[in-house]
Amino acid sequence: MEVRIAVAKVNQYADSESGDTLEVVERPGGGLSVVLADGQTSGKGAKAISMMVVRKVIGLLAEGVRDGAAARAASDALFTDKQGKVISTLNIASIDLHSNTIVLARNNPAPTFICSEDRIDALSEDCEPLGTSRNVRPVITELAIEPGLTIIIFTDGIIHAGERRGQPMNVGETIRSIIEDQDPTPEQLADSLLAHAISLDDNRPTDDISVLVLKVSPHTGDDARRMSVRLPIHVNSS
Amino acid sequence: MEVRIAVAKVNQYADSESGDTLEVVERPGGGLSVVLADGQTSGKGAKAISMMVVRKVIGLLAEGVRDGAAARAASDALFTDKQGKVISTLNIASIDLHSNTIVLARNNPAPTFICSEDRIDALSEDCEPLGTSRNVRPVITELAIEPGLTIIIFTDGIIHAGERRGQPMNVGETIRSIIEDQDPTPEQLADSLLAHAISLDDNRPTDDISVLVLKVSPHTGDDARRMSVRLPIHVNSS
Repeated sequence: MEVRIAVAKVNQYADSESGDTLEVVERPGGGLSVVLADGQTSGKGAKAISMMVVRKVIGLLAEGVRDGAAARAASDALFTDKQGKVISTLNIASIDLHSNTIVLARNNPAPTFICSEDRIDALSEDCEPLGTSRNVRPVITELAIEPGLTIIIFTDGIIHAGERRGQPMNVGETIRSIIEDQDPTPEQLADSLLAHAISLDDNRPTDDISVLVLKVSPHTGDDARRMSVRLPIHVNSS
Repeated sequence: MEVRIAVAKVNQYADSESGDTLEVVERPGGGLSVVLADGQTSGKGAKAISMMVVRKVIGLLAEGVRDGAAARAASDALFTDKQGKVISTLNIASIDLHSNTIVLARNNPAPTFICSEDRIDALSEDCEPLGTSRNVRPVITELAIEPGLTIIIFTDGIIHAGERRGQPMNVGETIRSIIEDQDPTPEQLADSLLAHAISLDDNRPTDDISVLVLKVSPHTGDDARRMSVRLPIHVNSS
């Protein structure tokens, strides 16, 4: 089999730096973890917070700390530092080749969508962002790695898209319509969701938006691991 | 403009874990760094070394430490720990949006290839791997971010490909033939180089092989950052 991961990210309109941070790290013993954090506000302050959270989590994961413990440690560090005045959402999605499962750790009020065969389920149990209090725990969900499994995670820029015009996005319905049309690649799914959210915001996103899609496919290619990154840049003429 | 990055990686034949580690991190203030290390041997020991090196470097880069200083720090840490008995190559490729340059730090005897318009140059000045002695310094090369610039970095699995059959790979010629044929995407270039190396090893690579390609293109798409990962997995039936 093959796990494919796609990420698409935009900044709030007219903001040069996204408050969302996403990184992918190798797990000791094989597998990968994707870590996504969204700091409380946008701009530089939020970026510093989300980078700190992601940095803390990937450092611990690299040492072999389990996902739930890494999330709790990052929350405690943030609470100790900011006394609850600054919070951050966190999602960790890990492909764990010891247990042959995908482990989701969620400290994000925005739901995670799980699609398989004919079903689309939302993981939307109450959960607290990091840094809100002592003893913040993530909601952990463990799923067998099976062909067809698709997981969709996003920051609250998706939830808030369209609110300015009074047309908030129905994320579940949007996902259903994208998946019914075709058998989308994770890239197509992430791009379609992002494009729909941006269009609801009249092409001027009111918040940073990050979309992360994991999809398990029957393996058809070779044994190489691959990664691609696309980074649009605006070079200032001096 | 847009910077596109492609990575393709395989393990030594019959080895479950690559000794090469590659990670991409966001730089504070914008931009990205790609960090690639190859530990001295293959298998678990090499993986632990290359992960330690990459972890050290990305932690320092995230704090705003400059690339050359991060490489030196990782070398000193490795030398202090292993007294020169264990070494690791290191390449850092950074898209620095402060200076609008691509900064290459190289502690890898394998050359780096720089392609632009009609030229293919090899960066092949002598340089030492990390951990060989005190005062190891990287060779630093700084390049303006310009459309058409293509940078090709790899671990020594590419250099050693074909040696078993007495047909070592001419990497420069291989790159030239791939580039002349077409205007390859970075993914096509990385995949072609990797495929050629594996074929020279009779489809049983004698070493871990990682290929990293950065390419600057005139920007044609939107302002979203994108990342894709493909991870082939073999689930053990229990």
